[in-house]
Amino acid sequence: MTITITAFERSPDRGKGLARDMRVRWALEEVGRPYDVRLVSFEAMKQPDHLARSPFGQIPTYEEEDLVLFESGAIVFHIAERHASLLPSERDARARAINWMFAALDTVEPPIFERTLAQILERDEPWFEQRLQVLEANIRKRLDGLSTRLGDAEWLDGAFTAGDLLMVSVLRRLHGSTILEDYPNLLAYVGRGEARPAYKRAFEAQRAVFEASKGTA
Amino acid sequence: MTITITAFERSPDRGKGLARDMRVRWALEEVGRPYDVRLVSFEAMKQPDHLARSPFGQIPTYEEEDLVLFESGAIVFHIAERHASLLPSERDARARAINWMFAALDTVEPPIFERTLAQILERDEPWFEQRLQVLEANIRKRLDGLSTRLGDAEWLDGAFTAGDLLMVSVLRRLHGSTILEDYPNLLAYVGRGEARPAYKRAFEAQRAVFEASKGTA
Repeated sequence: MTITITAFERSPDRGKGLARDMRVRWALEEVGRPYDVRLVSFEAMKQPDHLARSPFGQIPTYEEEDLVLFESGAIVFHIAERHASLLPSERDARARAINWMFAALDTVEPPIFERTLAQILERDEPWFEQRLQVLEANIRKRLDGLSTRLGDAEWLDGAFTAGDLLMVSVLRRLHGSTILEDYPNLLAYVGRGEARPAYKRAFEAQRAVFEASKGTA
Repeated sequence: MTITITAFERSPDRGKGLARDMRVRWALEEVGRPYDVRLVSFEAMKQPDHLARSPFGQIPTYEEEDLVLFESGAIVFHIAERHASLLPSERDARARAINWMFAALDTVEPPIFERTLAQILERDEPWFEQRLQVLEANIRKRLDGLSTRLGDAEWLDGAFTAGDLLMVSVLRRLHGSTILEDYPNLLAYVGRGEARPAYKRAFEAQRAVFEASKGTA
């Protein structure tokens, strides 16, 4: 059974692994599943054949025989559910790991992603500095809660799960700011995620795509 | 087995059913599970016993014997996984329904929720009008994709699922704006969700909490 995902032909993050195909690649590497990648340009993402897979015109998508998925959270969950190692088998522990998946995407990522967007789209606006302060305060509120809960544990709830995979992916968007440095336990947590062999393989794979794209127009 | 959720003692939406306990109540009504509600004040949400359940100090939480969950998406998924009727049993259809759950929370809700927040927190800021336009354009981009995909179908993918439950919940935040009226099929879709007996029971239950709170200081 072949798995095919889509990714940016030329990622706007210049190979830093912040595009959402990275979390899917990482999950596939954690469970040891090979996959094909179909690269799409920004123009191709607006065309009918991509919109048939992804109604919002985004990457990544995931194809496996007749099944097509288009939300990175759902794709990571689908991979985690079908292979051991990304979700605990014990009933309550599994529910808690899934809870952390939703926490990463619905509570922690939104203010962090808003900051990324503002830095791209609002940098030249007269209010930019003031708005950045509001956004960073929102981010810190989330990180306060997360840092307190993590404490000195290695992962959020026992062994590494898909919840950690998504939380680390989300926190990585703060690299380049100094916010994460104010939370040494979260910085170390992100570092542990990035040190996993599966993470490194996924990172190199997406980086190779960007490197190859530099030779093209 | 007793299920206990938390909800605002006095919801800032004044009983309109926009707080995130509504989607959990709705899911519990769809599967016919009774539940207890512990009401919390904004002050109580910052206290250690609430933070022990909800690291980000939010509502709703969900308790079932020793299990505690604190993300509404994960709670709805937990309920859906343990009862028939909110997720299809066929493997691919189930994965697609879960995909719509993530689409509702991660792709459609963020710009809609940002608009709600901006209207409360940024109304007096110099950037408010311009930011509102940007947010509404982002919302319309999402609704364009959703409306095209839904077409004239009753629900997003076959029978009603937890994906529809969350998508309708998210779109309801647009009531009071004229945005949704530009998408007649989405407006009718929201209306079908709100017409479900389980929705109505959940709505009345959360509304009763707000009505009761009006007599208090």
